Amino acid sequence: MNVIDERIGLLRDKMRAEGVDATIIPQTDPHQSEYLADHWQVRRWLSGFTGSAGALVVTLDNAYVWADSRYWLQAAAQLQGTCVSVMEEGKPETPDILPYLISVLPKGATVGVDGMLFNIDVTRSMESDLKAHGMNLKVDFDPADLWTDRPALPQDKVFVHDVKYAGEDARSKIQKILAEAEEQGASSVFISDLAEVAWALNIRSRDVESNPVVMAFLYVAADGGVLFVDAAKLTEEVRNYLADNGVETLPYGEALRFLGTLPQEARVLVSRTQSAGALEPVLGSRMVAGTSPVAMLKGMKNDVQVEGVRAAMVRDGVALVKSVMEIERTLAAGDELTEMDVADILTKHRSAQALYFDQSFDTIAGYGPHGAIVHYSANEETNSRIYPEGLLLIDSGANYLDGTTDITRTISLGNPTNAQRHDFTLVMKGHISLAEAIFPRGTRGAQLDALARINLWKEGLSYLHGTGHGVGHFLNVHEGPQSIRLNENPTPLMPGMITSNEPGLYREGEYGIRCENLVLTVPAFTTDFGDFYRFETLTLFPFDLTLFDTALMTDGEIDWLNAYHATVRERLLPHLEPAEQEWLIAKTVELTRDNA
Amino acid sequence: MNVIDERIGLLRDKMRAEGVDATIIPQTDPHQSEYLADHWQVRRWLSGFTGSAGALVVTLDNAYVWADSRYWLQAAAQLQGTCVSVMEEGKPETPDILPYLISVLPKGATVGVDGMLFNIDVTRSMESDLKAHGMNLKVDFDPADLWTDRPALPQDKVFVHDVKYAGEDARSKIQKILAEAEEQGASSVFISDLAEVAWALNIRSRDVESNPVVMAFLYVAADGGVLFVDAAKLTEEVRNYLADNGVETLPYGEALRFLGTLPQEARVLVSRTQSAGALEPVLGSRMVAGTSPVAMLKGMKNDVQVEGVRAAMVRDGVALVKSVMEIERTLAAGDELTEMDVADILTKHRSAQALYFDQSFDTIAGYGPHGAIVHYSANEETNSRIYPEGLLLIDSGANYLDGTTDITRTISLGNPTNAQRHDFTLVMKGHISLAEAIFPRGTRGAQLDALARINLWKEGLSYLHGTGHGVGHFLNVHEGPQSIRLNENPTPLMPGMITSNEPGLYREGEYGIRCENLVLTVPAFTTDFGDFYRFETLTLFPFDLTLFDTALMTDGEIDWLNAYHATVRERLLPHLEPAEQEWLIAKTVELTRDNA
Repeated sequence: MNVIDERIGLLRDKMRAEGVDATIIPQTDPHQSEYLADHWQVRRWLSGFTGSAGALVVTLDNAYVWADSRYWLQAAAQLQGTCVSVMEEGKPETPDILPYLISVLPKGATVGVDGMLFNIDVTRSMESDLKAHGMNLKVDFDPADLWTDRPALPQDKVFVHDVKYAGEDARSKIQKILAEAEEQGASSVFISDLAEVAWALNIRSRDVESNPVVMAFLYVAADGGVLFVDAAKLTEEVRNYLADNGVETLPYGEALRFLGTLPQEARVLVSRTQSAGALEPVLGSRMVAGTSPVAMLKGMKNDVQVEGVRAAMVRDGVALVKSVMEIERTLAAGDELTEMDVADILTKHRSAQALYFDQSFDTIAGYGPHGAIVHYSANEETNSRIYPEGLLLIDSGANYLDGTTDITRTISLGNPTNAQRHDFTLVMKGHISLAEAIFPRGTRGAQLDALARINLWKEGLSYLHGTGHGVGHFLNVHEGPQSIRLNENPTPLMPGMITSNEPGLYREGEYGIRCENLVLTVPAFTTDFGDFYRFETLTLFPFDLTLFDTALMTDGEIDWLNAYHATVRERLLPHLEPAEQEWLIAKTVELTRDNA
Repeated sequence: MNVIDERIGLLRDKMRAEGVDATIIPQTDPHQSEYLADHWQVRRWLSGFTGSAGALVVTLDNAYVWADSRYWLQAAAQLQGTCVSVMEEGKPETPDILPYLISVLPKGATVGVDGMLFNIDVTRSMESDLKAHGMNLKVDFDPADLWTDRPALPQDKVFVHDVKYAGEDARSKIQKILAEAEEQGASSVFISDLAEVAWALNIRSRDVESNPVVMAFLYVAADGGVLFVDAAKLTEEVRNYLADNGVETLPYGEALRFLGTLPQEARVLVSRTQSAGALEPVLGSRMVAGTSPVAMLKGMKNDVQVEGVRAAMVRDGVALVKSVMEIERTLAAGDELTEMDVADILTKHRSAQALYFDQSFDTIAGYGPHGAIVHYSANEETNSRIYPEGLLLIDSGANYLDGTTDITRTISLGNPTNAQRHDFTLVMKGHISLAEAIFPRGTRGAQLDALARINLWKEGLSYLHGTGHGVGHFLNVHEGPQSIRLNENPTPLMPGMITSNEPGLYREGEYGIRCENLVLTVPAFTTDFGDFYRFETLTLFPFDLTLFDTALMTDGEIDWLNAYHATVRERLLPHLEPAEQEWLIAKTVELTRDNA
């Protein structure tokens, strides 16, 4: 018997012992994180499936991983030969997890889960759906108990993110958080989201790959705060810093016990979407289930942060100039170059820049058909050699102490086809349309998303990922609360928010195109009709001029591109060597209807 | 003491007698209708305020009407000298009703309402909000008891809407409704929405002005249906028709009592947003609170309905040609013409058309500054004389047996200013952008709304109403489930849905512009990326060529207009007299960059 089947067998023994008929192991942690420390890779350990999303569902008879379309093939390959099968999420015939369980389990059945891994809203809805069908939810069933050689919680040291970069000290942030909480009828706040904890206290660590967060919960109240964190992670300096800010520390595992000891009149605000359902029985009537008071504060960057990001974008642009020049040089010399080499080149040049901390996510360097795999990341098995032809899609970014970057460029390595230029130009029309948008205060991302898509839609084309995600400041490259995507998100795009602008188009088996800059929401003007906002593009690197088909573009779109390239030149040239300057000038020459 | 203060005094006596500290009288009926029969004008009777929206809130100390911006001035004028004041809804400092009551009422207070006038969602949320602040909701407090000379329920006769227009018989519709209900776990449906009742049984009446609905509730189950309707409204023929379709009748007032007698194992689907909160205690565990199974079925018109609307649009266009010609003739002759005359002219020519039933709403004919009042309807006091200059906004429509129309045109009566042409062209750019949109299956109106607005937004301009509402078929001119507006609405735009496309711009004290056609969602094409839909414009009447500034338009926009006008000519010319043909040809001459 293979190791996966053995583990599922042990899990079923545990289920029988605890009266559980089915269990769901989601791909998250007690902070509802998107990216996980190894300690929380329970689904990976149990199933062998390594995708970044997708729950494992085990009944006494069956076991399935619910995989989205990115992972249909990978999951099938990794699960082959085990008792676990793939549920291809997104296909019309594939049921959602809970309806599936309700359809196969008998009345009176119990679904057992680790209540720390489902948010309050989801927990409540699972509970009421099961109850409506005569079934029960048990929230203290922890499959991770079986994992005897489970990795420890991250042990990296915590450090302070200097206020000269953060722009606001922890004391001031805590005051604002409590003021927001009061508006929701609460007097204290329990923060589960790792990036929110890091932001609130201006602390960072390396607890999740590429996410400089600290594995901790934070409780804040008027009379001080409590950080729940492994003591080994704290230096004397950080301990003193926290104490100076009125924050004491308790072990990571003490959070729920602590909440249980709060006086009955406490009113503790927790986020319905970011805090675990397991908090509800602990807090009882002390719980105020609302929205995170941190998300908006964190999302709307202050002037110091914005200036920091602008400075980081110059260094990031310089590193990209050096990187793409090296890629071109290598190809021109006929030397071997692979997708993994591209990632290494980018890291080499970025890490030589001032204030560099780490990459902000694993570089996606997708050559040819690999560019069409939206979340592709080259590994030893897939790593393609790159030749001086076809399209190369590079999506990469870094965390600098003064800001986080995230940029995608699609580069023609030689002889672009008309089809490639047509597709690229349609994507850029969407990118430009969004970049040029002006919109009234209160506008949500879902209202603007179609601006980036309508030119594709008119030709029956589409891309299924979001057009824009929020970006942290020396924090996670994906953050809320805003987004620009097909799905509704009630958060308006407010000044100070940094969001990606990244439409794309993917031709399976051929090539992928994505064009991504980060944009800052800024005030545009105020009229009789109210306040209007616009986007300031922050990212500084040229788009590949050889891929534009000006016959498809309006004069305004050509003007936008030329103005953007003029800004890129102006900001980067002073920081480049003469040969690099020459290269950049050639890459940003004015686009006209004659030269393209 | 004035009559309003007397009535409020009696209401407070009743409140004291029944232990009620505050009451809310909303502007709706037990069917959650937007337009009300006189019988349900309780708020108007109690307060004297005649606006089409806005609740009256009475505590033992204060009384307010919550009026939105359309009605701030009107409410202030109508409430002057009474004990009722205006709460200007939409101003940041104006509280919402429930937070206001919670802030002024003591702990333990009781808010009493007629539970038939609030939907299930609102009732539940009022109940839980009040409870959270130690207050109670009483749902059997009916202020209408005081109204001794209350108008009776409408007594108009019910008639059958011939299946040759409806395209599907009642029996087939009921089967589909029950199949949809089964998907939500219910075996029967209680329908409250008046238009849904009328649609389901192919019956109509004149129970609400301009809405050919029947004041009735409908219960449908596999073993037959029950229509709750005043017996006096039923002819022998209709009674037989209903019986033939397995529908018996009970008096209108019997609905709740009937629901209370259903067996405990019944699973009755009710709409959370269209059915009254008062149903919840009556149905108890028999209630399945979900979404209306009728709304989507009713919204997606069948081929017979669509053909009917196309035919009705020809007759409506012919009537509009005759009307606008008469308006122009009257002005040219120097004869007196007023806004109310315009409404009369439209009704005269429409009512001469085949299959005409009634107007689909009160005509809005707003001359000059009146055009800037979005829901303006001329009356004896406001009625303006119209002169051969300035802009005239005409928003009007009719119910024909084969379809419902709704069209807005903004017409220059002479010497349009550059500012007017600039504004008009921006509005038309939005109209055309939406008309030309192509979008994937699943797209919601809120995603497309910005296409109609972005050109205005870029100049700091805006309009606060929705861009598009659903339109019924020989039914209410406003219907769901879809919409195209700023606010999120989860309903996708599906083939067969008819929606308005009506961006606008309002210059207070100067003029108003609105350009409205009805559009039908139709399949565009299917590609590797899925099914795509587009809009087919149904309305047939030219836009005023003298108001376009082609310098602001793209070639594509000019092409769209010329193609639309060609369609208008082609469809209407065969039905016009020679002089009318000549007029229409002149009004639809090709727009070029030279002639405008």
